[in-house]
Amino acid sequence: MNKYNIAVIRVVTLEDEHILNIHGKLIEKYYPNLNTKTFCIENQYKGIYDDKSHNEAVPKIIKLVKAIYKDFDGVIISCAGDPAVKQLKKDLNIPVIGAGECLSSLSIIYGNKIGVIGIGENTPKSIKEILENKIVKYIQPKNIKNTTDIHKEGGMEAIKNACKEIESVGADVIILGCSGLSTAGVFKHLSKNLLIPVIDPVFAEATIMFALCNKKLY
Amino acid sequence: MNKYNIAVIRVVTLEDEHILNIHGKLIEKYYPNLNTKTFCIENQYKGIYDDKSHNEAVPKIIKLVKAIYKDFDGVIISCAGDPAVKQLKKDLNIPVIGAGECLSSLSIIYGNKIGVIGIGENTPKSIKEILENKIVKYIQPKNIKNTTDIHKEGGMEAIKNACKEIESVGADVIILGCSGLSTAGVFKHLSKNLLIPVIDPVFAEATIMFALCNKKLY
Repeated sequence: MNKYNIAVIRVVTLEDEHILNIHGKLIEKYYPNLNTKTFCIENQYKGIYDDKSHNEAVPKIIKLVKAIYKDFDGVIISCAGDPAVKQLKKDLNIPVIGAGECLSSLSIIYGNKIGVIGIGENTPKSIKEILENKIVKYIQPKNIKNTTDIHKEGGMEAIKNACKEIESVGADVIILGCSGLSTAGVFKHLSKNLLIPVIDPVFAEATIMFALCNKKLY
Repeated sequence: MNKYNIAVIRVVTLEDEHILNIHGKLIEKYYPNLNTKTFCIENQYKGIYDDKSHNEAVPKIIKLVKAIYKDFDGVIISCAGDPAVKQLKKDLNIPVIGAGECLSSLSIIYGNKIGVIGIGENTPKSIKEILENKIVKYIQPKNIKNTTDIHKEGGMEAIKNACKEIESVGADVIILGCSGLSTAGVFKHLSKNLLIPVIDPVFAEATIMFALCNKKLY
């Protein structure tokens, strides 16, 4: 089978090479035909967590992707808010995807009552636009307001509680609506504690990117 | 990587072994980690093409799947109408998917204006339930009223014309809303003639089934 070179864009400034590469390594583990190289935007140490930080990131992402995309078969914007994704899809001739649309895509396989957890006050806009009234509940776990909070004491417990609450309202599936939740590896912890399935952002991105690359062959 | 054994259910009675296995062989080509075995329902030589034939097929599919599922890691109901899929999802402890939900899932990656072609008078119910007002146009190509009509003279031309018409209304993507269109291999012909992407039912099924099997590892 063909191998594909994928650029992974982190929308948080990460100076530690190991942390920078966590999403890329996960993508390669899930779909070994994808080779990744990871980039991050500058000067945004708390990532994207509200409209202001989203809007600040968009031009940075567009500039970064346009500088590097020619060496790749596809670009993953590894963020559930899908910042700059619509614009880049129009401008580039290779697949560009965001975590939000990929999570939404996979979620509908499980049913039409979808729960979402995330770090913002509301459901990420892109997920809301796609799933509309299929979203039965959104929760921002207690004390988690940006991607760094996930790793603080009590963070995992708050996420588990939020998921339990979503399960209790009768959702068919839970979307982890922030790619920082993949970095923290919460998916493994959660899936053992819940009766309903959970969709991980980086897993969703990897699935859809491989599909788009693979589809080109046929 | 793990290999998974997948049961493929054709909802049309097929006595020719080669034709019976076309979807399974395509699935194995797209995702070589999936091994397939194909079954078909009895006494339904024109497949599913309206409400009556859909309702006739449902109990046959349920009976067939319940007799064989224990030997498999997942079951694909290879029909865009997703007959019996919701019921089987509830009843079985392995992934069960239908072409309709998989097509819908992948389509939203391309935008929110989705065109569909199919063999019934209306959009397959399952696709309509999922995509709702994202469907901008449905066309039943001229003189194509069931899965055998696709192969008749003028069939491919009618399908091409329908797709061109969907493109002309500004759709972002076209769903091939009948798995018989995969059997006939129309995807290859179409993608060369259109500016917008086309999603093939069997490709969509294979992508989602592999994702569901693969997800269990992590």
